[in-house]
Amino acid sequence: MQLFYKANFEQDAILDEIDSKHCIRVLRKKEGDEIMVTDGIGNLFTCQIADANQKKTKLNILATQREFEKPKRHIKVVIAPTKNIDRMEYFVEKAVEIGISEISFILTKNSERKHLKLDRLNRIAVSAMKQSLKAYLPDLTNLVTIKEYLGQAETAKQKFVAHLNEKSTDLTTNDIGDSVCIMVGPEGDFDPSEIEMAEAAGYEMVSMGHSRLRTETAGLVAVTLLNMI
Amino acid sequence: MQLFYKANFEQDAILDEIDSKHCIRVLRKKEGDEIMVTDGIGNLFTCQIADANQKKTKLNILATQREFEKPKRHIKVVIAPTKNIDRMEYFVEKAVEIGISEISFILTKNSERKHLKLDRLNRIAVSAMKQSLKAYLPDLTNLVTIKEYLGQAETAKQKFVAHLNEKSTDLTTNDIGDSVCIMVGPEGDFDPSEIEMAEAAGYEMVSMGHSRLRTETAGLVAVTLLNMI
Repeated sequence: MQLFYKANFEQDAILDEIDSKHCIRVLRKKEGDEIMVTDGIGNLFTCQIADANQKKTKLNILATQREFEKPKRHIKVVIAPTKNIDRMEYFVEKAVEIGISEISFILTKNSERKHLKLDRLNRIAVSAMKQSLKAYLPDLTNLVTIKEYLGQAETAKQKFVAHLNEKSTDLTTNDIGDSVCIMVGPEGDFDPSEIEMAEAAGYEMVSMGHSRLRTETAGLVAVTLLNMI
Repeated sequence: MQLFYKANFEQDAILDEIDSKHCIRVLRKKEGDEIMVTDGIGNLFTCQIADANQKKTKLNILATQREFEKPKRHIKVVIAPTKNIDRMEYFVEKAVEIGISEISFILTKNSERKHLKLDRLNRIAVSAMKQSLKAYLPDLTNLVTIKEYLGQAETAKQKFVAHLNEKSTDLTTNDIGDSVCIMVGPEGDFDPSEIEMAEAAGYEMVSMGHSRLRTETAGLVAVTLLNMI
């Protein structure tokens, strides 16, 4: 099955130009054929092609599944982008496949990457959502300093920092509720002052096993465990 | 801390040419300086440089830690290589970082990749072992058909196939012992005849959550869960 994505699809059941071309020219779909569309906020639409236009494919919605495979909890990862952007792109792709609701990017003292092309990461998220047949597109929010980030109101009920030190407990030994956020440091780790700031903002320190993990690996281990435990 | 790797180091405490150059020319280590070396079979050596030769750095072993951070269980993943080799390389890197003992590669009916450069994957495994400060280098075994693979004696006490079907139980609900093997299918999934073969060979079907995961993602989720549960 191939899944298409269109924001606000219910208000305007027309595929964008790129998707129209893909659907009609590449996949050779015709009037009357059925395809699946998601709006990225939990709706999965079964549609019939009403007008097989290569630029503006018009669809009729035959059936709507609301809250399609709704995640069991809201999982947010706050992560310092890696110097090598491929590693961050890979993280976004895998996190979406495994299941994530929100990704925020932070700038820390030891961050080597100071800029981020959020558009490209959003495209990777859309593509991973379609590939893994999900109906929820995670929110990606642009790079802010860790101080700015911690200054904002955090809606997650449980807040963790991934850190290997003597105060850390294992993530899996925590009783995880329906809304959780985990912060992952840069290559070179958080500065001690940043850990203090996070603790003052109510973050608890957790470890994810004994391995010294790269930033993007720590993020993926967190996403996997928060989906499974 | 930087970790060096040399097989059979205890018998011959000399760094290979590439590592000697890295140690003496790049890191500018001198006679009397201390460095760490592993032999990939669980030994971590604290060494002193006896001869700072750029081609053959001779070392004296000052201290030996045996079974350094020994994994709690023997984890083996048997996986069908992906068409895009980057995805397999990424899998090897992340699996080593998180913790794995053995990786075997299988050729299945739906496999799009029929050849594998095991040397390159071994180099990636060595580099990931050093980067994540581990003393165990996983065994990588070359591509064989799934039939040949299942025909060999399997030493793992528990054997699973990652598969989403009505008979699958959740991997996390199994009581996992000290030696486990999990088989992961290709893009396009196993052929039903292959699942039958695996079942006849004593493999149990397990799922790793509800997501439709890519091959390399399924492998990583398995490695993460088997390290944590």
